[in-house]
Amino acid sequence: MFEKKHVLSMREFSREEIDSVLDLASFLEPYARGKKSDMLAGKILALLFFEPSTRTRMSFETAMKRLGGAVINLGPAEGSSISKGESLADTVRVIGGYADALVIRHPKEGSARLASQFSPVPVLNAGDGAGHHPTQTLLDLYTIKKEQGHIDDLSVALVGDLKYGRTVHSLAYALSLYGADITLVSPPSLRMPEAIRSDLFSKGTSVRETNDLSVVVNSVDVLYMTRIQRERFPDPQEYNKVARCYRLTPESLVNARKNLIIMHPLPRVDEISPAVDGTPHARYFQQSFYGVTVRMALLKMLIGGGA
Amino acid sequence: MFEKKHVLSMREFSREEIDSVLDLASFLEPYARGKKSDMLAGKILALLFFEPSTRTRMSFETAMKRLGGAVINLGPAEGSSISKGESLADTVRVIGGYADALVIRHPKEGSARLASQFSPVPVLNAGDGAGHHPTQTLLDLYTIKKEQGHIDDLSVALVGDLKYGRTVHSLAYALSLYGADITLVSPPSLRMPEAIRSDLFSKGTSVRETNDLSVVVNSVDVLYMTRIQRERFPDPQEYNKVARCYRLTPESLVNARKNLIIMHPLPRVDEISPAVDGTPHARYFQQSFYGVTVRMALLKMLIGGGA
Amino acid sequence: MFEKKHVLSMREFSREEIDSVLDLASFLEPYARGKKSDMLAGKILALLFFEPSTRTRMSFETAMKRLGGAVINLGPAEGSSISKGESLADTVRVIGGYADALVIRHPKEGSARLASQFSPVPVLNAGDGAGHHPTQTLLDLYTIKKEQGHIDDLSVALVGDLKYGRTVHSLAYALSLYGADITLVSPPSLRMPEAIRSDLFSKGTSVRETNDLSVVVNSVDVLYMTRIQRERFPDPQEYNKVARCYRLTPESLVNARKNLIIMHPLPRVDEISPAVDGTPHARYFQQSFYGVTVRMALLKMLIGGGA
Repeated sequence: MFEKKHVLSMREFSREEIDSVLDLASFLEPYARGKKSDMLAGKILALLFFEPSTRTRMSFETAMKRLGGAVINLGPAEGSSISKGESLADTVRVIGGYADALVIRHPKEGSARLASQFSPVPVLNAGDGAGHHPTQTLLDLYTIKKEQGHIDDLSVALVGDLKYGRTVHSLAYALSLYGADITLVSPPSLRMPEAIRSDLFSKGTSVRETNDLSVVVNSVDVLYMTRIQRERFPDPQEYNKVARCYRLTPESLVNARKNLIIMHPLPRVDEISPAVDGTPHARYFQQSFYGVTVRMALLKMLIGGGA
Repeated sequence: MFEKKHVLSMREFSREEIDSVLDLASFLEPYARGKKSDMLAGKILALLFFEPSTRTRMSFETAMKRLGGAVINLGPAEGSSISKGESLADTVRVIGGYADALVIRHPKEGSARLASQFSPVPVLNAGDGAGHHPTQTLLDLYTIKKEQGHIDDLSVALVGDLKYGRTVHSLAYALSLYGADITLVSPPSLRMPEAIRSDLFSKGTSVRETNDLSVVVNSVDVLYMTRIQRERFPDPQEYNKVARCYRLTPESLVNARKNLIIMHPLPRVDEISPAVDGTPHARYFQQSFYGVTVRMALLKMLIGGGA
Repeated sequence: MFEKKHVLSMREFSREEIDSVLDLASFLEPYARGKKSDMLAGKILALLFFEPSTRTRMSFETAMKRLGGAVINLGPAEGSSISKGESLADTVRVIGGYADALVIRHPKEGSARLASQFSPVPVLNAGDGAGHHPTQTLLDLYTIKKEQGHIDDLSVALVGDLKYGRTVHSLAYALSLYGADITLVSPPSLRMPEAIRSDLFSKGTSVRETNDLSVVVNSVDVLYMTRIQRERFPDPQEYNKVARCYRLTPESLVNARKNLIIMHPLPRVDEISPAVDGTPHARYFQQSFYGVTVRMALLKMLIGGGA
């Protein structure tokens, strides 16, 4: 059962609630591929993107429209001009009066929760600063489940910038609910924050840490790659060394498990060579497509009267 | 009966025509709340916003989509680039060839009327400079009627910037058609223009004028608040004094009539304290929602084959 | 029969394929005028406009929505930010995962073909730099066929900037498939490129060339006007002289054939006087409307399961 009014943070999801989203997503997948539906006909989703996030916006739009619903958009330029004139609370009450649900993307952490306190309709957090981005984590979990058949007891490596990467923080938490083995692979300066690591340990999750990707590649079921941003390194030479070590190529995958899947929240820059796209391990474009499926499930649950 | 081809100015509306819009709006209100409709399925509304007006744009989009129709948008950036290349007349003929009606927002007074002379389809004026914004006035009237049960013989105070406020000029005219008592409350420098006041007097409308909001609050059925812009005052001290006098708080409302409703075209800045939102008098968010309802009625009349 | 997966260039169209598009367009024309359809309900068209082209974008949106489909948009600002972060190939694979077809407008020649190599769904070229813009040519042909009854054996003048005008290059090629007589009218500095002229000659097309519009006007069935851009001329006086010679007025048309139609891809600037709009020869706004019809046909063929 799914009883939430809002979708603000993965921390508020139990394993049962996650499963109910993933099950509904699986049922709705044919509609994400173009099967006609009028499940949300007459309904309106408002997207309030106070900062740009093209893929997330288009994924939500697609999800709503595939279910027969309509979308109204507040873009970043309008958002910044509107926020000069009025409080977020007022904006949310006005646009909440037009729509059946709001999706909020905002540069400031906590914005989605604030919005949910004033909105007359459900709020979905599509990323608020260093805060949460729960729909990304749900689509990551859906991808693992669809492509591996299950999530429990898999060996998953999170690779790259584990310090600033919001995505991997939420995913690590969610994987711990499924008893996955987690390997953290990052340069020393970009380690997963201590608070999150202790939280995982305290839940009994098996967590390894290393800075050497080359050995991990061969012993995991899921490689979750993330982008390492040049700006994080004061010294360009240091960045170049790290970027070279954390780059996947077909050669680096020759001894990987047969069932290994490679994921990435996209956009990728250099961390996955285009030559990997043709290997049987690549799943990042599939993962992006599954974002539509998972968002359809959430919209159906919040707007369309439950699972 | 409603026989208009275009909606350009409140001055062209008789009381009977206003009533027919409000009656249809009342009938369509359930659809504004998400009841499924395909009344305008297959129809297209083009929004030509040559200057930004986020709420008005989203309200029109919502109205069209709630009725099953679709929307195409020309945004301000495109509008300014397009108008370098061609005349408004040509733009209107081209986009009028795509759509079943055009909504125009333009910084120059008279633009909507000019557009209507070239458009092959109905034109709705969504605000042209210091000119008209008839859909705002119609939603104001609808709000009064729904929340008070009737418009006739009410006592209505228009408060704030009555000199530059396009909204209150049209509303005062429309209220005069219903025999409302009007109280004009403004600082001396922002009085309602003489031309409009004489027009009201000549129609036999009861009009009082004052600069003291505190007494008026207790003797009216409707307080229509507007924003006073800092830029109107050469002296910041003068602005601060006025802004303090024209600010509503729960305290200022303790002796108000039970049935008093407070309206505001939004966005508000300081003229209504957020603490007023929780009082039984606040109706400004409701009013914003009613904008969808009223615009649905106009679209249905102009595109969908009458009332 | 129409077996294409993508629509990239007119050069890939046989006469039979063009005819099948025009025939379907004719069948769909009532839907472009607002007849309700759900032929593409549940389907999504993604518009990837890496440079602005307001009319083309709105025309495609209208076509898709008139058929009951939905549209998602990547605007130029987002496009330029996205292309900093990832390759066109990745963008196309991600958005191709959301949509049933992609429309691409890009400043660089060859972009649409590149996109088609990575896209999981059909790609329509909506103009790529100095390259192709096949839907414009198809709508030009549709206009001629509808307004003249046939294309074969007509006498068509292409007027203005024939050197840089992508539109007239494709149109000349397509007209040669129908045995039209072509007259090229341009100032000497803006002649049709030699490669295209030889190609027409080698196909046996009758081609005349002149720089004098005044005599041509009276001996053709179609005048296809194009804009001459001031920037093409180093000397403003030279530009002014040319612009005056290539400007149509009612006076310049007094001895024209009864059945003469005047076309223009729009926007026009000075090359057609507004006074011509009221003559029975003007068809440029009709032509713009037909763009919706022709794009509906292409979308139906590529997404909706053929003609």
